[in-house]
Amino acid sequence: MPELRKDPITGRWVIISTDRAKRPSDFVRESVRIEGKGFCPFCLGNETKTPPEVLAYGRNGGGPNTPGWTVRVVPNKFPALGIEGDLDRQGDGLFDRMNGVGAHEVIVETPDHQSTLATLPVRAIEDVLWAYRDRVLDLKNDKRFRYALIFKNHGDAAGASLEHSHSQLIALPIVPKRVREELDASKHYYREKERCIFCDMIRQETESGVRVVGENDQFVTIAPYAPRFPFELWLLPKQHSSAFENNQSSVYSSLARMLKDTLARLDSVLDHPAYNFMLHTSPVGEEINDHYHWHFEIIPKLTKVAGFEWGTGFYICPTPPEESARFLREAQVAATSAV
Amino acid sequence: MPELRKDPITGRWVIISTDRAKRPSDFVRESVRIEGKGFCPFCLGNETKTPPEVLAYGRNGGGPNTPGWTVRVVPNKFPALGIEGDLDRQGDGLFDRMNGVGAHEVIVETPDHQSTLATLPVRAIEDVLWAYRDRVLDLKNDKRFRYALIFKNHGDAAGASLEHSHSQLIALPIVPKRVREELDASKHYYREKERCIFCDMIRQETESGVRVVGENDQFVTIAPYAPRFPFELWLLPKQHSSAFENNQSSVYSSLARMLKDTLARLDSVLDHPAYNFMLHTSPVGEEINDHYHWHFEIIPKLTKVAGFEWGTGFYICPTPPEESARFLREAQVAATSAV
Repeated sequence: MPELRKDPITGRWVIISTDRAKRPSDFVRESVRIEGKGFCPFCLGNETKTPPEVLAYGRNGGGPNTPGWTVRVVPNKFPALGIEGDLDRQGDGLFDRMNGVGAHEVIVETPDHQSTLATLPVRAIEDVLWAYRDRVLDLKNDKRFRYALIFKNHGDAAGASLEHSHSQLIALPIVPKRVREELDASKHYYREKERCIFCDMIRQETESGVRVVGENDQFVTIAPYAPRFPFELWLLPKQHSSAFENNQSSVYSSLARMLKDTLARLDSVLDHPAYNFMLHTSPVGEEINDHYHWHFEIIPKLTKVAGFEWGTGFYICPTPPEESARFLREAQVAATSAV
Repeated sequence: MPELRKDPITGRWVIISTDRAKRPSDFVRESVRIEGKGFCPFCLGNETKTPPEVLAYGRNGGGPNTPGWTVRVVPNKFPALGIEGDLDRQGDGLFDRMNGVGAHEVIVETPDHQSTLATLPVRAIEDVLWAYRDRVLDLKNDKRFRYALIFKNHGDAAGASLEHSHSQLIALPIVPKRVREELDASKHYYREKERCIFCDMIRQETESGVRVVGENDQFVTIAPYAPRFPFELWLLPKQHSSAFENNQSSVYSSLARMLKDTLARLDSVLDHPAYNFMLHTSPVGEEINDHYHWHFEIIPKLTKVAGFEWGTGFYICPTPPEESARFLREAQVAATSAV
């Protein structure tokens, strides 16, 4: 008998298949292989082929937009939003619009075309996280923006148009709906219980352990109780923290280890899947609060379709999270990475 | 400058690209072609290869599960939910679950392997709509169910596992989240204004006309103001109606013409795209109300990815709805179909 499960935060019900639960090998898909063919604007020496950089780490001497960097942030050459201008909010009868003002940046995570966030050294991943943080903090100075959204498309099937490892940042004058839902629900829970719902969930999950994929001093990765997708994972700080960008440096180092470990486990169990991740954090101006708990959501791209799911908000997950967690927990990955 | 637009019903903001708006020919994808290779359990003569039928039209004499039918409904051979048993609602700390009790049926729309809802005669499409209605009415007698969800996956890219034209019905003990959001928002609007928000939207859209794709005596198809996807369409009754299944027979005949016309326009402009549609209607026990307005949502599968969109609820639509509506409105399709 399949199970209907409710996500305690969003209130979304999902169907979890149990009878013919899919194992990792049951998903037919293409692994992400880095071909290295053709011209790559993110490779060392091609710095002038991107818009001028807004941030670079690692360069000792040498001018901007020259080699020598380890992490580099540039405006997206084909931005979804325009950086100039006012919002110019307007109504038209029932409808509301504003200018598509925002920042759209690319974080080039490494000069090496072959590396990924699962294979880079922990120290290099930590630098990527610092770049996220530095850019978020800088963009928050722009009073037009209400939210800074960090996300990553890894692999063609997950929407990456370039294979060289990179993340993206979109700064928006509005808070995305799914984040707003989490914020509202966690605020409501806090008003009732004076506890953070994420902290409660982490406590319950680490005590039971069945959906825990990995854990280190400061972070835990779990397969959520009511996932929308097979092998969906959430990576959360164990101590309450409402904003990604407001943390001590040891947090980013610990997060780098946990992120590498989690992505390496996905690579091992699912043979280098395409995936998306998104960083959910508090909006600009609401950074310090007791109810919201920042986290990464990681979604491997294993199933082909979801038009139906988009239209209904109703998901059928073919692998119980207890099983995905077990597969990932038992995977053999380099022991140094997570601890 | 791109535009940020807000959907008046769900409150979701989307980015609409304007500078490099994508035209129909800019979407790279495979057209849906019916190959007719291999064994098909939905074809005439193979009635014993499906679970026993729960409804069939058109058979004059002849026993159940024999040829002679024009529309046939059978339980899904691989159901997402189990039809037997109690809900057995349980809590586990923060989490809620129940047994995955529900019905999962397949509506085989035609005995002809080559036909689609865009090419079938209007009368045959009307029969498909009557089959939807009859099955919804029957399943509502089962007191375990709160919602009956009709949807269609057309083409491999949209998740159809069999190419023979069919729709699906899932009866659920819960109301899907996206439908619940629409219900709550429209109820809220009604409380404030004592008007149906969909009726207001239809009035504004038919007056301006820029997003209208087609219209007949009782129905209108529009490209919504803030679409999530390029060429997303909504097909709505022009007169207020809260439940699909509670209508006079002339409504289904008019709907059949509008649906055929709409799908034929998509086939013409986008060269036979894969698509999903879902029927949004009022839940069981809330059928008669002044605030909710049943409708079809039609989503061609044109863009490859959306893991990011799933995780954020934040959509970037590369074609303004005014342009998709114009392309579709100007398409040449058989004149008999819509009127």
